[in-house]
Amino acid sequence: MILKNFWYVAASSVEVNSTPLARTICEIPVVMFRTGAGAPAALRDMCSHRRAPLSKGRMLGDNIECPYHGLQFDPVGRCVKIPSQEEIPRKAHICSYPVVERWGVVWIWMGDPDLADPAGIPHKPWRADPAWNSENVHYFHIKASHLLMTDNLLDLLHVSWVHVNTIGFAADAVREDPLVTEVSECMVRNTRVIRNIEPAAALRSWGDFAGRVDRTSVSDWTPPCFTAIHFLNRDPVTTIEFRLDHLITPETARSHHYWLLVSRNFRIDDEELTRKVFEDNSRVAAEDMDIVEAQQRMIDLSPGSVDMPLRQDRGLVAAHRILDRLAKQENAEAKRNAG
Amino acid sequence: MILKNFWYVAASSVEVNSTPLARTICEIPVVMFRTGAGAPAALRDMCSHRRAPLSKGRMLGDNIECPYHGLQFDPVGRCVKIPSQEEIPRKAHICSYPVVERWGVVWIWMGDPDLADPAGIPHKPWRADPAWNSENVHYFHIKASHLLMTDNLLDLLHVSWVHVNTIGFAADAVREDPLVTEVSECMVRNTRVIRNIEPAAALRSWGDFAGRVDRTSVSDWTPPCFTAIHFLNRDPVTTIEFRLDHLITPETARSHHYWLLVSRNFRIDDEELTRKVFEDNSRVAAEDMDIVEAQQRMIDLSPGSVDMPLRQDRGLVAAHRILDRLAKQENAEAKRNAG
Amino acid sequence: MILKNFWYVAASSVEVNSTPLARTICEIPVVMFRTGAGAPAALRDMCSHRRAPLSKGRMLGDNIECPYHGLQFDPVGRCVKIPSQEEIPRKAHICSYPVVERWGVVWIWMGDPDLADPAGIPHKPWRADPAWNSENVHYFHIKASHLLMTDNLLDLLHVSWVHVNTIGFAADAVREDPLVTEVSECMVRNTRVIRNIEPAAALRSWGDFAGRVDRTSVSDWTPPCFTAIHFLNRDPVTTIEFRLDHLITPETARSHHYWLLVSRNFRIDDEELTRKVFEDNSRVAAEDMDIVEAQQRMIDLSPGSVDMPLRQDRGLVAAHRILDRLAKQENAEAKRNAG
Repeated sequence: MILKNFWYVAASSVEVNSTPLARTICEIPVVMFRTGAGAPAALRDMCSHRRAPLSKGRMLGDNIECPYHGLQFDPVGRCVKIPSQEEIPRKAHICSYPVVERWGVVWIWMGDPDLADPAGIPHKPWRADPAWNSENVHYFHIKASHLLMTDNLLDLLHVSWVHVNTIGFAADAVREDPLVTEVSECMVRNTRVIRNIEPAAALRSWGDFAGRVDRTSVSDWTPPCFTAIHFLNRDPVTTIEFRLDHLITPETARSHHYWLLVSRNFRIDDEELTRKVFEDNSRVAAEDMDIVEAQQRMIDLSPGSVDMPLRQDRGLVAAHRILDRLAKQENAEAKRNAG
Repeated sequence: MILKNFWYVAASSVEVNSTPLARTICEIPVVMFRTGAGAPAALRDMCSHRRAPLSKGRMLGDNIECPYHGLQFDPVGRCVKIPSQEEIPRKAHICSYPVVERWGVVWIWMGDPDLADPAGIPHKPWRADPAWNSENVHYFHIKASHLLMTDNLLDLLHVSWVHVNTIGFAADAVREDPLVTEVSECMVRNTRVIRNIEPAAALRSWGDFAGRVDRTSVSDWTPPCFTAIHFLNRDPVTTIEFRLDHLITPETARSHHYWLLVSRNFRIDDEELTRKVFEDNSRVAAEDMDIVEAQQRMIDLSPGSVDMPLRQDRGLVAAHRILDRLAKQENAEAKRNAG
Repeated sequence: MILKNFWYVAASSVEVNSTPLARTICEIPVVMFRTGAGAPAALRDMCSHRRAPLSKGRMLGDNIECPYHGLQFDPVGRCVKIPSQEEIPRKAHICSYPVVERWGVVWIWMGDPDLADPAGIPHKPWRADPAWNSENVHYFHIKASHLLMTDNLLDLLHVSWVHVNTIGFAADAVREDPLVTEVSECMVRNTRVIRNIEPAAALRSWGDFAGRVDRTSVSDWTPPCFTAIHFLNRDPVTTIEFRLDHLITPETARSHHYWLLVSRNFRIDDEELTRKVFEDNSRVAAEDMDIVEAQQRMIDLSPGSVDMPLRQDRGLVAAHRILDRLAKQENAEAKRNAG
């Protein structure tokens, strides 16, 4: 099930401009654009008249014009012009979705509009802190359920297999895995501190380490499917510190959007390093895409099959339990509102 | 619903020759060919024996041979040879469909053969009149319900948006739209006369007008999905007159065939103009295809959504009412015949 | 229905090595590999933990490692390592399938493992006889039900149409078709002896015949979908003799794998001829693929349509009856085991 009463990322800030942008979010086609005053807007991407996609139309000032018969809609979905008649019926208006621009991306609310409180948007102060470089914003489109990527991010152990040639370390480099999982009502935190280890392949070029490092990752999962990772590697001379914000938005039951916001607080003006980090993280994400899309194909071929959680999956199991509880709440609310 | 008891276009005349032609019409795979005497024939494209497509076979005189085991069928679907046995069982014969060649295309009847009266084929005398050039026959395959293209053609107003760079004029060039819609039991006529307007982009090269023109279009829609447009542009010196026959045939519930027959009664021997008109009308049709295929994608993504007819859609609403009435009639007849 | 309690071909011997091979067999994704001792192994291609395909993993000695979290499975599917924990739960083990390597291919048993008796593998001694050349092993992937190819091979008559330019002869070259069909409980034999006929196109280059030949084919079909053809052409000076083993394995309801093993007992060291025979038989198989894939498309377009067996199809009808009886037996056994 796709939770609706949450803020999701709809686009990175740079994607939203005066050219309409089409994207399916939580199974609803949406068109986004930016007004002259700079505010992002999001409407259902379907003219009320004949269901043509508005995203194929053009902007006339702050209004979007349907490409088929020229109906115009303002940034909150009100039909403001029907060229062939004076009267504008109530049914002509279309659905708009609350949007808030924050931390370099545009957040959208696809659920009950009365509940759309921007205070619910995750807090990411490092994205606005001049001591951090937050230029790198990745977007990926993935042909698998958003839950498979959620699981992937709740699980630090795959790193030693899927990412062993990039950011991972060989599992046998540590005697015992020091994974600590803490679960609260609406968060799952996985912490892992590994001392005195060879730095992973990609990290060697980022960090210029003399020898072995202490490696720490603290990974906070919050619903609906966000994971904020605080990642540090340090030797006696050098420390490299990252904030990795993984933000997932369901597209359909079997596909999702995935934004990765990368922030770092070292060598922040080094453009060459910014490019290198972007390339390396693109490779890491491609490794994840490859595995979750393969999982989805296997699951589709094997109706009735189920997962077998291991001890390492305590966090993942807890997150699924939270999601199930929230889905039940949403269903109950939806029934109450309908009843 | 796809109406069956109507003549549809199956092919343009030049497409039907001694090489079998495969085409799905009203959800039935059909093979067409031409006999030695020049008559077109249409059979179900499936051998009675093992269901191989006859269209992959070859002609042996007037008979078509199955590519798999050599069964032969004559132009009315009788099995005339089974190479491996003398006896030809009754079940070996296959379905043939009445066909009539007229106005440069081959018409087919997919419904109750007892009702197949050629008098029901639309009358298009300009296509046989030596005073008219009727060389331009367009064929398009469109991935959208035939009803979306029917709607498109019943609607003259989209021309100012979808075709504004080809045959349309900017909507604000006229103070008030003079659309007149007349509805009779089996026809919808949209008439639009616009005086003293700048000729549309494509028309300038066709007509060589000195200045502004009077522009008239009379568009007659008849079921199942035909639209005949009489289109005139005139200034004090020049008149250009077109007959545009838009003939639509359902392929599946979500795709259709579309023939556009273009006739003109001016500069009829000007081959350069014939080519130019063909190119320009190809562009116009591509503009329509683009919008109706986009509509279909949105409709598929939005189960339960509906259109909102405007005043301008009076003709379209009337046509849908006629189609609904005819569908009910066909269903009732089918039940009566079965009962 | 796909029969399960039979040996099917899973791969040719050369395909199975230390690199995991993925193939869907009887609707189940399977991964195959070869142990250090040279034995082939086949497991369900889905990790018990998170359903990732093992075939994307690597071999560690005789064990295959999951690419996602490093779980290891031995050649009979026992989970032998979970890197993140000591305890290996019973549910961690995955399904393995009995495999036997024989006659140049690897045979697999997808049904009830208690019934997997290698004595049920078809006997093909010519494939191990040094007097025969058995180098040519073809593999084809075909987008049609395995039954359509089974039918194709049970039917010698299509040869005069589908293969008339390769291995067929024109049907009118013989006065009366001498097809003899014998049916026993678990076999259908089609025999056809044609005397004093022009050799078929491909055969002329294989056989170097002076003039006309006697042509014999004996085609033995056995369930689930194997056809062994003994094919001879002879003139007073030359005899060419082939054993053609057609081995079909269902992939899904609408696709199958097809192995063709070609053996000959003449000019067995002539590499040029081996290559020529390979090319010619590839063409012949492509002709069959083309027709059965076309059949499948027609069948999909024509729900409710049925075949009309002819007299020539006596063998095919008998084989279908055998298949129906075996399917009923399997269903009854499955119910008994479940009840």
